[in-house]
Amino acid sequence: MPDALPETPRVTTDPLPASTKVHKPGVLHPSLRIPMREIALHPSAGEPPVTVYDSSGPYTDPAITIEIEQGLPRPRDAWVIARGDTESYAARLLKPEDNGFVSGDRLTPPFPVRHAPRRASGGRAVTQLAYARAGIITPEMEYVAVRENLGRVQAKNALVRDGEDFGAALPDFVTPEFVRDEIARGRAIIPANINHAELEPMAIGRNFLVKINANIGNSAVTSSMAEEVEKMVWSIRWGADTVMDLSTGRNIHNIRDWIIRNAPVPIGTVPLYQALEKVGGIAEDLTWEVFRDTLIEQAEQGVDYFTIHAGVRLAHVPLTASRVTGIVSRGGSIMAKWCLAHHRESFLYERFDEICDVMRSYDVSFSLGDGLRPGSIADANDAAQFAELETLGELTKVAWARDCQVMIEGPGHVPMHKIKANMDKQLAVCGEAPFYTLGPLTTDIAPGYDHITSGIGAAMIGWFGTAMLCYVTPKEHLGLPDRDDVKVGVVTYKIAAHAADLAKGHPAARIRDDALSRARFEFRWEDQFNLSLDPETARGFHDQTLPRDAHKTAHFCSMCGPKFCSMRISHDIRAEAQKEGMIEMARKFREQGEVYLPLRD
Amino acid sequence: MPDALPETPRVTTDPLPASTKVHKPGVLHPSLRIPMREIALHPSAGEPPVTVYDSSGPYTDPAITIEIEQGLPRPRDAWVIARGDTESYAARLLKPEDNGFVSGDRLTPPFPVRHAPRRASGGRAVTQLAYARAGIITPEMEYVAVRENLGRVQAKNALVRDGEDFGAALPDFVTPEFVRDEIARGRAIIPANINHAELEPMAIGRNFLVKINANIGNSAVTSSMAEEVEKMVWSIRWGADTVMDLSTGRNIHNIRDWIIRNAPVPIGTVPLYQALEKVGGIAEDLTWEVFRDTLIEQAEQGVDYFTIHAGVRLAHVPLTASRVTGIVSRGGSIMAKWCLAHHRESFLYERFDEICDVMRSYDVSFSLGDGLRPGSIADANDAAQFAELETLGELTKVAWARDCQVMIEGPGHVPMHKIKANMDKQLAVCGEAPFYTLGPLTTDIAPGYDHITSGIGAAMIGWFGTAMLCYVTPKEHLGLPDRDDVKVGVVTYKIAAHAADLAKGHPAARIRDDALSRARFEFRWEDQFNLSLDPETARGFHDQTLPRDAHKTAHFCSMCGPKFCSMRISHDIRAEAQKEGMIEMARKFREQGEVYLPLRD
Repeated sequence: MPDALPETPRVTTDPLPASTKVHKPGVLHPSLRIPMREIALHPSAGEPPVTVYDSSGPYTDPAITIEIEQGLPRPRDAWVIARGDTESYAARLLKPEDNGFVSGDRLTPPFPVRHAPRRASGGRAVTQLAYARAGIITPEMEYVAVRENLGRVQAKNALVRDGEDFGAALPDFVTPEFVRDEIARGRAIIPANINHAELEPMAIGRNFLVKINANIGNSAVTSSMAEEVEKMVWSIRWGADTVMDLSTGRNIHNIRDWIIRNAPVPIGTVPLYQALEKVGGIAEDLTWEVFRDTLIEQAEQGVDYFTIHAGVRLAHVPLTASRVTGIVSRGGSIMAKWCLAHHRESFLYERFDEICDVMRSYDVSFSLGDGLRPGSIADANDAAQFAELETLGELTKVAWARDCQVMIEGPGHVPMHKIKANMDKQLAVCGEAPFYTLGPLTTDIAPGYDHITSGIGAAMIGWFGTAMLCYVTPKEHLGLPDRDDVKVGVVTYKIAAHAADLAKGHPAARIRDDALSRARFEFRWEDQFNLSLDPETARGFHDQTLPRDAHKTAHFCSMCGPKFCSMRISHDIRAEAQKEGMIEMARKFREQGEVYLPLRD
Repeated sequence: MPDALPETPRVTTDPLPASTKVHKPGVLHPSLRIPMREIALHPSAGEPPVTVYDSSGPYTDPAITIEIEQGLPRPRDAWVIARGDTESYAARLLKPEDNGFVSGDRLTPPFPVRHAPRRASGGRAVTQLAYARAGIITPEMEYVAVRENLGRVQAKNALVRDGEDFGAALPDFVTPEFVRDEIARGRAIIPANINHAELEPMAIGRNFLVKINANIGNSAVTSSMAEEVEKMVWSIRWGADTVMDLSTGRNIHNIRDWIIRNAPVPIGTVPLYQALEKVGGIAEDLTWEVFRDTLIEQAEQGVDYFTIHAGVRLAHVPLTASRVTGIVSRGGSIMAKWCLAHHRESFLYERFDEICDVMRSYDVSFSLGDGLRPGSIADANDAAQFAELETLGELTKVAWARDCQVMIEGPGHVPMHKIKANMDKQLAVCGEAPFYTLGPLTTDIAPGYDHITSGIGAAMIGWFGTAMLCYVTPKEHLGLPDRDDVKVGVVTYKIAAHAADLAKGHPAARIRDDALSRARFEFRWEDQFNLSLDPETARGFHDQTLPRDAHKTAHFCSMCGPKFCSMRISHDIRAEAQKEGMIEMARKFREQGEVYLPLRD
């Protein structure tokens, strides 16, 4: 172990219980190895394994030796080079301010392996949107198509479509051409910086599985590189589809390198945070030059999407004056302060086309930030919020005109009856660009439980059409989430996303519910644990009162005890009924229904 | 301490932080002492205390000395006696089977104080419904009116009505006459057995605050009287409005006595559970006589509402044959088994009018059980479920005809897109009798997190019109909840109920959200903790990274650190803007909006 790495991250690498990582090839691109997780069931089930979407990357693959100092394999290098539209070049020189001017012991060591960055050659747009519009099905698109199709073949035979999709257009089966078309229309994005060669591509769009994002990142007060890398690996283990590195402390450049080189999921950032660090935390001192330089710096590292708060215009700021909680977005408040201090329009808005030029050179996707999102129930759906949303719609069209991929960030704190209006307005003014919301939190009164106040809103807005849900952890409003908070946040949001898929009528969503419910009904406790989003917790709760192996096949649990288990009784009923034939019995009952002991009175 | 009580329960009795219990008098009934909790704010807020609904009973009143062996004070005795329509009589003799034939050391000691029960004299109905229909405003009704009115005077001045109530009729101000009218219409109930003299009355109805129920109770496998009494006190401390004692083990009579004598909230039970214990757990051996005797036994003890699974008819059983999870209600499965074994109609359905006769003699409210609720997403809204619901509608009318109070139990496992159909059908077929649902759980795949899968559904169905939400704890499907699970379940359901009140546009609901959000914006950390549903957890999370006293007034937390606190920056913005006048600034910006540096492209 080199001396320079006193804090080499330790990450969790075991597969989940009863799970095997499998890889499917592509057809157009046969060399693709598209990962899925198969959960094996007990032989008594007589059922095939349940295949589930797997965002955990190579960490859960026992065939792979993880070496954090080396980073993950880089299969996308070949795909990008094969397109012949990019060039390798000497990276921007690292500057002392990139890591907050720290040095010596306090400096997080640079990532040990350097890769020369690539960028578009000849002013081209090297974005998935540009390829999609040109009719090209990239490896990334086919990867996503196969990945999204989990279990749909089984589903097609087993399920009828059942849901309310509010105008979404979920296909029975996702083809590579469907992916291309959705990207071309701007209804979906594949965040995939050409410099993030370690990426396992995924799609964010209303007609795909609802995705979730986990935020990590240090602050000036707490956390370290090792912790943040571990949180990234931990969050994808439990199902995070993308990870945002929201670091705001020092060492920000080097920490990000460690994260990206080890990340199989898209990494998002808010470049404004680092730009502000570079000018000593003085919002007024921010300049377009510092900001643009930060975009290049991060694009070279491989960040897949940037939150850009270009919708916070000078004229919007006074609209927040009578709010209960003012501006609660960090980026939004920084830009509002800049606008006021200089009494001029936001440089992000002014220079938006120049930002597009950077984005298209690396295929960094826009996540147009909602800097004026409501921070309290009182401020929901107000003039400031919707004025910004309209500006984001305007900017979406500018970005699309330059072949940039775009998604739109959304609130925030919103009571249930105002959630759908957010979704409907976003679809209308942003031309169906994917919506990416934080929660929303449906009440303000439960700090410590805001994963739940927001999980309610997230499930609903996901159902209404939001493509990706940004998690909220139990620490929201109170402190920086730790490892446990990250897990609770991710599992809560997997619940919200899955509940949304079910309600939308996603053709394969119910496969896992049905398999788990059959296991429950048949007292296959191990299968019930293994099929759950968090097998460890399910098993642990069960074992608190019934720890013995024999209890894993018991036809009851400690909740009701053996005499009162309704499911056990249900089995008895079926067994009894089968003696004379349930169908025959049903017929007889229905015929006799009217004469059976009518209710007196 | 008497030798006979080796397990005298220890209960938590401190007030919550910064909280004072206050009592309001009635006008029609000036002797009433109606409890509320006032949460004091920091003097710098310049705001009055926030008054919140308080279901915690005398346990949080430092003026009261709690003696569990004595039970709570019994103010309702005087109210009941004053009505002159009941008689005191010698209680039914306790039988060995009432406590599962246990004796000696294994017998939970009887509650030390005996009160002679009362019942209606002369075949009268002594129900709140009968009084309401007769135009009488009882002390219980006025109590409820004052209790529900928390903060509405402030609200009237501060808030505009903002919500979507789906046809509910929330008044600006709850008058005793409004309560009477809602009870008379059957749209609300006050579960208040005349033998539960310790009760602090509360209402369950669509036009009142959404309520929550916590389930406690031992099983054959685990738990004891002391634990169950403590869980009851613990659950109301965090906000449970009613408590169901679902005990199914031995000692069931004596445990219930300890609970009721110390319960300021309505206690519900499922008498079938005890009846089944009495016949050795053999469903086929249940008889009307054993069941009726159990109703009398529990009515004398003071149980406020009974779950009666009279909607599980013989003809419905075969409708469950092709379900994924069969019958998942314990009561439902017991009755289904009885019907099949005897091949005849349910005695609960047959004898429903005789059950009514017991209920009206003590004012035990019906909670018409949903014995065929779906236990999986696959089974939601199926023929079995809706056939039973229609029967419950029929039985509601029978009960109403006999002046019995009624609420209706609802599911279960239901995906989001099928939730509203449940509410709408219940309103239609049950004549707007209050709906009381378990969750519903919006996916099956997260055992260990079913407080969350169900909290999502509970918030939604509460918004749509459900009057009371039965909590689900993290242990659901896995084991008997312990004290920690009870707290998490209660807080989660307080969130769901409050989110529903907000979305319905309850005129006072937002007061607490706004007060907490103002505290958050002004960095009054202590106020933020104290106003939250769980001050301990909020404070604990904050203090994990910033434990010092000085941090309680710091203008940041560890999530973003000082430089990045958007709220701090918002304050700077306001201060700056106020120099030249925010209104003037807003005007100028809007006028100049068009000429300000237009977006190029």
